[in-house]
This record gives sequence, structure tokens and C-alpha cells, in this order.
Amino acid sequence: MFDTAEIAHEVDKATYRQEEAKLREALLAAQFELLRHGGFPVLVLIGGVEGAGKGEVVNQLNEWLDPRHVQTSGFDRPSEDEAERPYMYRFWARLPPKGRIGIFLGAWHSHPIMERALGELSKAGVDQRVAEVQRFEKMLADEGVLLVKFWFHLTRKQQKKRLESLAAKKSTRWRVGDEEWKLFKKYDALREASEHFVRSTSTGDAPWFVVNGVDARSRALTVGQTLLAALRARLDEKPVKADRRRVRPNPLVAPLDGRNVIKALTLDQKLAERDYEQQLEKWQGRLNLLSRDPRFNRLSVVAVFEGNDAAGKGGAIRRVTGAIDARFIRPIPIAAPTEEERAQPYLWRFWRHLPRHGRMAIFDRSWYGRVLVERVEGFCDEAAWLRAYQEINDFEGDLHGSNTVLVKFWLAISKEEQMRRFKEREATPFKRFKITDEDWRNREKWDAYEHAVCDMIDRTSTPVAPWTLVEANNKFYTRIKVLKTLVRAVEAGLERA
Amino acid sequence: MFDTAEIAHEVDKATYRQEEAKLREALLAAQFELLRHGGFPVLVLIGGVEGAGKGEVVNQLNEWLDPRHVQTSGFDRPSEDEAERPYMYRFWARLPPKGRIGIFLGAWHSHPIMERALGELSKAGVDQRVAEVQRFEKMLADEGVLLVKFWFHLTRKQQKKRLESLAAKKSTRWRVGDEEWKLFKKYDALREASEHFVRSTSTGDAPWFVVNGVDARSRALTVGQTLLAALRARLDEKPVKADRRRVRPNPLVAPLDGRNVIKALTLDQKLAERDYEQQLEKWQGRLNLLSRDPRFNRLSVVAVFEGNDAAGKGGAIRRVTGAIDARFIRPIPIAAPTEEERAQPYLWRFWRHLPRHGRMAIFDRSWYGRVLVERVEGFCDEAAWLRAYQEINDFEGDLHGSNTVLVKFWLAISKEEQMRRFKEREATPFKRFKITDEDWRNREKWDAYEHAVCDMIDRTSTPVAPWTLVEANNKFYTRIKVLKTLVRAVEAGLERA
Repeated sequence: MFDTAEIAHEVDKATYRQEEAKLREALLAAQFELLRHGGFPVLVLIGGVEGAGKGEVVNQLNEWLDPRHVQTSGFDRPSEDEAERPYMYRFWARLPPKGRIGIFLGAWHSHPIMERALGELSKAGVDQRVAEVQRFEKMLADEGVLLVKFWFHLTRKQQKKRLESLAAKKSTRWRVGDEEWKLFKKYDALREASEHFVRSTSTGDAPWFVVNGVDARSRALTVGQTLLAALRARLDEKPVKADRRRVRPNPLVAPLDGRNVIKALTLDQKLAERDYEQQLEKWQGRLNLLSRDPRFNRLSVVAVFEGNDAAGKGGAIRRVTGAIDARFIRPIPIAAPTEEERAQPYLWRFWRHLPRHGRMAIFDRSWYGRVLVERVEGFCDEAAWLRAYQEINDFEGDLHGSNTVLVKFWLAISKEEQMRRFKEREATPFKRFKITDEDWRNREKWDAYEHAVCDMIDRTSTPVAPWTLVEANNKFYTRIKVLKTLVRAVEAGLERA
Repeated sequence: MFDTAEIAHEVDKATYRQEEAKLREALLAAQFELLRHGGFPVLVLIGGVEGAGKGEVVNQLNEWLDPRHVQTSGFDRPSEDEAERPYMYRFWARLPPKGRIGIFLGAWHSHPIMERALGELSKAGVDQRVAEVQRFEKMLADEGVLLVKFWFHLTRKQQKKRLESLAAKKSTRWRVGDEEWKLFKKYDALREASEHFVRSTSTGDAPWFVVNGVDARSRALTVGQTLLAALRARLDEKPVKADRRRVRPNPLVAPLDGRNVIKALTLDQKLAERDYEQQLEKWQGRLNLLSRDPRFNRLSVVAVFEGNDAAGKGGAIRRVTGAIDARFIRPIPIAAPTEEERAQPYLWRFWRHLPRHGRMAIFDRSWYGRVLVERVEGFCDEAAWLRAYQEINDFEGDLHGSNTVLVKFWLAISKEEQMRRFKEREATPFKRFKITDEDWRNREKWDAYEHAVCDMIDRTSTPVAPWTLVEANNKFYTRIKVLKTLVRAVEAGLERA
């Protein structure tokens, strides 16, 4: 893969001037079309060896384009806050919104390549990272992000020459420090690690373009023209009807006999108010103690509450938040996405709320909206919610990987109990706000929702992030089961922490 | 101030039930009206002594209101990232948007009170903090935030009794640890410090309500009813025409002889291209070295670029960003605010971009928009931009206080030079995007803008944040002056760091 890119192409000054003028105008036109179009974000990744002109090309792009609509990000070592979140947190935080161009100078590929070259990552570890990156980039592509990836390559000889010439000039001397020479000594290991990584993550959705870094004019034109071609291809695409966009996915069919995990629940569970008060005291106290355990500062807790309308999510959540100091817990009600959130991939608005270590986040509804309400109401196309199962599993895998205890509750009530609660809500002045026309409309789709819930549980209950089904006809029982489950999950998390 | 609140009011169960039912319904109705109204945010501050029921009241409010539209925040010690920004950063980050209710359990008043009680803050230091808080809360009020502040008080005897009774019950024992008893020993010092602080920050815009914390029913009703009254008063306000809202401020008048700081500049400065290349190399190299200085990790740098249209802000900025590793510098182009930003006080969208230590943020246009374009075009009312000068000075004072080097550039070109550049832009294909109808319209208001610029410089050039006026008819000279000024400011910052 790198062999072809070892040829040091050359472009003479006159040709460059001519080509640059055309390119610049066309790039700007494409950028402004993108801005008006506003349909997708563009993310340019720049990776490669030291001295190959990565920084120069980024500056060049910022000169050719209108830099006010370009976000350039370089990634340093993660800060403390970032280090307490999953690896991908920093990159999510800097994704460009629709209509804009983001340039990442080094990104998610840099760490694994470096670790492999320094011998800190096994071959199996590399495979794992490659698979993660492939899935992440596929998700970006599926979400409409135009990903254009450039790898800057130099042969050992070319790199040595470049570094020496940088070191010789007063104005660029600072760019070649001990660090750079140390890395140069690892040339072979780095080359091997990067070639493997670059080849393995060159997918149909997001291939790498490997560019020789010797000639400044040649590399700049190559990058500019490749970016322009990618932009033009996407901008000139004829809009395709959503349901024609892909091979039609296999539909999910509900079992013929109507039996499912929800129907198998005994929704009426007993717990008297008196016993409830005692149990509440006990489990709230235990939860509080856990939040004060010194080991708690080494993990994050994320609890997800989903359930039928009127199943008692709010009441259960308040029993959890009431047990813990407000400094350490944050309820996050999920409503319609804001303008900033709509301009980003679906999971972006959940990533931004991930808690740091020593903190709990309580999601009142969550990323599961995509496979529940959005699926049933047709707010997104079938392909989007079908792929969401895997995207969610990947996301939750990332959470688990960064010491996050994830607890997911589905609160289930019977159709009869829901009717009783709806009517009670309508009759009680201070409960009336809890019932809207939408609740009545959702109720008419009871079976479709149940089908969606069963698929969701089937496809996203994983060993690291299992669903807890809560029989919720009895509010007292519900709240205690929620608290108890949460306490046990946190206890298990502390054991591991 | 606290004496009245030492009376332990009592409310019997029957009265409570009756009052609570009414209150709950009215609060909910007000909350939903607020949500539909969407015109202002509500911020409830809860402060006071340990054991006075602060947490219980917050839980109670969350039960009475629809908690999905309430944001409760407790403030722990700042994280590493937060500690590298000004003190107010954490509070800005958690401000509720318009239409929502935010509850802060402890806020900007907690630290100074504690520090004073523990003898870590002098009397003069307290005065300074009080003044800061007063200005901050006035700014919130001016921006339309409804601020409702509750202080929970107990006499020494009442507090002792409360702590003992909490410690006696298994379910609440965890709430009274060594920390709480240690603070109790400081009762007198804490009382004195808080009474002074509470009294001094009880302003007409945002008075404190001091509540006795002995009786659970009484304190809950008091808080609920006070909040309701505040909500109702604001919701029922008749809309007042903007220009009637306040006493009309004194207009700013331009000097009769037309002389001003801008006209006093010699805009045509000489620098040949050859000298420029040399100087550029020199100053970019120096800037880069500074960014690699170990002391650089103890300060942040914020550079603000303002100037006439076509004065060359973009080109100057690229010479700065081109000198520094993309990991450490971030250009922030300021465009129209997003939906999330419009729902917050004016300065919110700048606070969110403040860099941590070891980082530079380059604002391409900035918070000065309020006293420039918004003033001249009438996008905000006169009172808003008139008070903005002080708000901005406070903000920049906060930046200075947290080790931020702030450099502000005004790039000035002559009217003739602007015309030349406008025409050149129209004639050059890749520059055409830089010129819009708006630029031509702005040009017609040249004098009004110049007047606004002079007022801005007059009122916001402070010893900690002086303006640098850059004679910008010659691009080479402009870029070198910008780089040189920035280098010297960072050098001075490193000396202090």
C-alpha cells in the first residue's frame, strides 16, 4: 500500500500556479455549496510520518478554503476530564456539524499505531482496535459524514533528508526535536504498524489516500484535488429515495405465537407500603454509602430508564437522585434534539452528557429512542434503526471499556394498569401535565411498541450491558427493584475498580 | 438579617396538605406557562447551613414540578479542566436555558463564605468577592434571568439538635460525618461570614430569602410559595416597550472636532515583502518556542481579532495558527448564535470556548460584536450595549484572574484602502466569497462604526486587557505587528506564571 506512495512526485512552479488557481476557486465554490446544502459534515483526517508536511497541508487548506467554516483540531494527550471518558470522547466532541469541514490532524488511528510500533500493543490488540475503528467509521459514513482520509508517507531516506533540512533552517529547527529523532529510529516498526493499520481501515466507505510527502507542491495539489473530487461527488449526487438507498434489510418479524419476554413477566408484584418504606430506607442508604466509597472515584455510573408511558420512570428516578448528593448525580431528561444536536450523528447528543469518574448520569429516556419511538413512528428510515442496534452495542462497549457501570431499566406495566393511571392523571390536577394526546396515540400502537421493545431487548442485552426488566404495576415494588439492581451493579463495579 | 429567620415556624399536617395541593397545582401551571412562554430562564439558588433541609427541599421541588424541565446542579470541588478556567466557568456551564428552571445547590457564594469563616480570606477579600457577585447577578438579571435565592438558616442550638437527630437515625446517619461536626464547631464564624455575604448580596434585582430550616413542612411551603410568587410576577408582567424599560441612559456623543484614536493612526506603514519574510520567520519561530515553554502549561492565551471589513483579520490569524502546533491552538470564528446559545445570556457562547491552560484560543470576531455591529445595526436595545462595556470588563477581569493572557487587536484600514480591497475581491475569483452585499452596506455606515469603535476602545482598554490598534493598510506590517504583540504579551505572561 505504501510502495506506490514512495515515488516522490514533482510539480513545477508554473504548473502548480495554474492548477492551484483552478483548484482554489473550485474548492471555495464547493465549500459554499456545502454550507448552503447543509446536508452533511465533511471530516478530513490527516495522518502520517513526521516531516511529511502534514501541518503545511492543513495550513494550505485553511488558506484555500474560507477558514471561518473550517474547524481544525489537533489531538494532544487527553486531559483529566477526557481521560475519565471513553477513548472516542474527544473525537466526538470535535466532530464538525453538517455543512462544515472539520480537519483532524491525527485522530483515533494515531494511538494504536504508536502503541504497536513501540511494542505496547499485541497483534490481537491491533486487530481489536482496527475493528473498533472500522465500526466507528462505518457509523460516521452511515450517518452521512463524508470522511476523507490522507496518510502522508516518506521512505526512510526521504524522511531523514526532510528532518535534516528542517533542522538546518533556523525557522524550522524547532520542529525537529529529540522526540522526532527518537521516532525516526523506529522507522521500520512505525512503517509496519501504520501500513497494516492503514490497509485494514481502508474500507469502501472511507479509503485512505496515501500521499508522498517529499514535494510540497505535489502533496498540496494531491490533497486539494482529492478533497475536491470527494466533495463534488457527494454534492452532485442525485437525491435517492430513502428506501432505495440500500439493499432492503431483512425485516424483523414478531413470533407467530405472540409469546415474548414482556408477556412472560408477572407485572403484578406485591409490596406493601409499610415494607416499602423500610426497604426504601435500606437501599437508599446503601446506595448513598456506595457513592461515598473511595473506589467510586475510579468509575462512572450511567443508568438508563425506558418504559411504557405512565410506568413510573419519574418516580423511580427521584428515589435514586434523592439518595445521592446532588453534586454527584445528574438526571438527563431526553427530549427533542436541539439545532446543534440535529447537525451531528445520532449518538452525539448522548456522548456529550457522559459523566466523569465519581459521577452518575441518569438518562430519562435515552439513545434507545431510535429503536423505539423513531422506529414505530417512522421518524427515521428502516436502515437507520436496524443498524442502530450495533451502533448502540458499540457505544455501550466503549462505556464498559472506560470503567462505566451501565444499568438499563425497562419499566413494564399492563395495558389495563396504564389505562387506570391515564384516567387517574386526568382526574388529578397536579398530574394532568403528565398526560397528553400523544400518550393516548402511543397507546393505540401498543403491539407495535411491544414488538420494538422485544427486539431491542433481544439485540442489546449484552453481558456488559444487560437490560433489567422491571414489573411495574406496583410502584413500590418498581422503585425497590430499581434501587436494589442499581446498588448491586455499582457494588460489582466497585469490586472491579 | 438572620434574626427574623431564627423563629422556628411550624405548619401542622392538615394545613400543609391543604396548602401543598394548591401550591403544587399552581407551581406546575406556572412551570408549563414558563415553558410555552420561553422568554426567560429561572435560576433558584439554595444555600445555607448543614442540616437545614436544603437537599430535602430540592427533592420536594423536583416532586412538585415536572422534573424533566428542571436542571438540578450541585457543585463539588472543580475538576482539573474547570480549575484551569475562571471561577465562574462551572456556573456558566450549568445555567438553565430560557423556559427552564435551574436549581443550584450551593453556588458562587459558597466558596467565599467558607474561606472567610476559615480565616483564609481577608475583609478586603470579602468585599472584592461581594462586588464580583453583585456584578455577576446584576448581569444575569439584566439578561432576563429570574434569580430566586434561598438561604437556609438555623440557630446554633437548632443546628445541634438537627445534626444529632440525623445522626441517630440509621437512614440518615451517613449525612452527618466528621466534616459536618467540624463545620458545626465553626458555627459563629460561619454565621458571621454568611450573614455579611448574604446581606451584601441581597440586591433589588436578586434578594435573598432567609428561611428557617427546623420545620420540614414550613420550609418547604415557604420556598414553594416564594418561588411561585416570583414566577407569577414575572409571567404576569405586561410586556413593556424596550425603550421604556429603564431610565433612558445618557447617549454617547462623538467629539465635535471629529478627532479620535482611529483618525490619529498613520494607517500606511512600510514593510517590504523581503523584510516581511525575514520578520515572519523570526516572530513565528519565537511564538512557537514560547508555546513549548514548560511555563506555558500554567497559562491560557486568548487573542481577539476585530477590525474593519477587509482589514486582513483572516490573513493575520493564519500567520498565528501557522506558527503553532494545531494541538495547542484553536481558531474560533464567531458567527450568528445557535439555538442553544440564543437561550442563554449574551456572554455564554464565549465562556464555552475558553481554553484550558497550555492552550490558545483565537477569536475571529468576539464578544465585542455587541458594542459594534449590534449597536450600530440596532440588533439589541441601547441599554443592552451600554451595560455591555462593564460586563465585558468584568469578563476580561475574570480571564486575567485565572492566568489568561488576553490580547485584543483592532485592525484599522482607511476608507480608500477598503474600497481598493473590495474591488480586488470582486475581481479575483477565489476572493469573491469574501465580499458580500453586507460589506457594502456596512461601508455606508463607516462613521457610525468608527464612533462605536472609539467608544469601545475608550471603555474597554484596561490595564489587564488593553487594545492594540494595528495600522493595517499594509498587510505585511499588520501581520508582523500582530505576531510581535502576541509574542511580547505571552512572554510577559510567562514571566508572571
